[in-house]
Amino acid sequence: MKRFLLLLLAVLSLSCMAQKKPVNPDVYYARRATLFDQLPVYSSDIIMLGNSLTDGAEWNELFDNCHVKNRGIVGDIIPGFMERMEPILKGQPRKIFVMGGINDISHKVSADSVASAMNELLTLIQTRCPNTQIYVESILPFNNEVRLWKSLQGLEPVVPEANAKLKELCESKNIPFIDLYSLMVDENGNLKAEYTNDGLHLMGPAYLVWRDALLPYIK
Amino acid sequence: MKRFLLLLLAVLSLSCMAQKKPVNPDVYYARRATLFDQLPVYSSDIIMLGNSLTDGAEWNELFDNCHVKNRGIVGDIIPGFMERMEPILKGQPRKIFVMGGINDISHKVSADSVASAMNELLTLIQTRCPNTQIYVESILPFNNEVRLWKSLQGLEPVVPEANAKLKELCESKNIPFIDLYSLMVDENGNLKAEYTNDGLHLMGPAYLVWRDALLPYIK
Repeated sequence: MKRFLLLLLAVLSLSCMAQKKPVNPDVYYARRATLFDQLPVYSSDIIMLGNSLTDGAEWNELFDNCHVKNRGIVGDIIPGFMERMEPILKGQPRKIFVMGGINDISHKVSADSVASAMNELLTLIQTRCPNTQIYVESILPFNNEVRLWKSLQGLEPVVPEANAKLKELCESKNIPFIDLYSLMVDENGNLKAEYTNDGLHLMGPAYLVWRDALLPYIK
Repeated sequence: MKRFLLLLLAVLSLSCMAQKKPVNPDVYYARRATLFDQLPVYSSDIIMLGNSLTDGAEWNELFDNCHVKNRGIVGDIIPGFMERMEPILKGQPRKIFVMGGINDISHKVSADSVASAMNELLTLIQTRCPNTQIYVESILPFNNEVRLWKSLQGLEPVVPEANAKLKELCESKNIPFIDLYSLMVDENGNLKAEYTNDGLHLMGPAYLVWRDALLPYIK
């Protein structure tokens, strides 16, 4: 049995070494956070706060607006936004667009808990930056038929459920809620297959859809 | 034996499912390339062309210059730059800063082959964009004591060797070669440990060192 376990360990470690070196979400997160600590935020700025979906774009180019700044980090959850808000809050930015929740859901957080985490974040921003206009963007659908994200398996219905709670929350706080979900969802409740190559993240053309939906609020 | 193999397979697949979902370099590459296809490049632009090291920064913010555009993609190699140059060349940008070679080296490409791949790229840019000022940045050191990158194990000496060839090449083509290697290397030939959290990629403060080295050429 001992020999068997040793062999098992050997094969497992070999299988790990053989893998393509992926971007480790944790070390990536730490690096990106230390970069954001170095980058000033000004009262003329428009902050795109979010996870990998926000991280993946060049927002200043999409909006042809130098004041628009990317503050997305792969894998981030709403409580993670809270922990890295200081450099943003200090800058008293003109606007903050928040997109978050899908990673929280992948960690089995309920729709209610997503909304209450968002409530904490919005309250923090409103308290520290009373002159900052906040916008909350809906959580996007995903498509487990394009690629299986096991951590999201069966959780498709939680996304619209969480979006409904976020919309309610925004109405109660008089914050605009921007529905991107409807723009990206197919008739089966999945992210439109043509918008993604892994079922979760967005191809270039999908970012134009997102950009166009935000344009009226960016001006 | 058959039962043993089946058990082994089961444990292996479990071990994979249990992993945090990493960013898959290949699908990420395709997504980012389709984004760049959507983003116009203008003759007033300064293009930061490269791999994950370039990808990881917010260059327009670091330089406080809206014309500076990030064209880095995680995992890219110099022949990969060639394949996605069209949207950049079409724009006839004012300047292009090129940083590449470490992924080529991790694929066991020799210093000579790195230089000849760079020669092809530079020739393409000079032919298609005769008015574009090109700058080649040195390959950065890595640090396998911080984290072991098996694909780079023992290849530390190839980096300065490739940098010497790139410098020669740039002199022959009258293109400025910017030595960042010397700014980031420690006394053992490794990337300074304080500049990285995975032995290869850069923390925020290291990007300020990089930024300061390029400032004289950005103006």
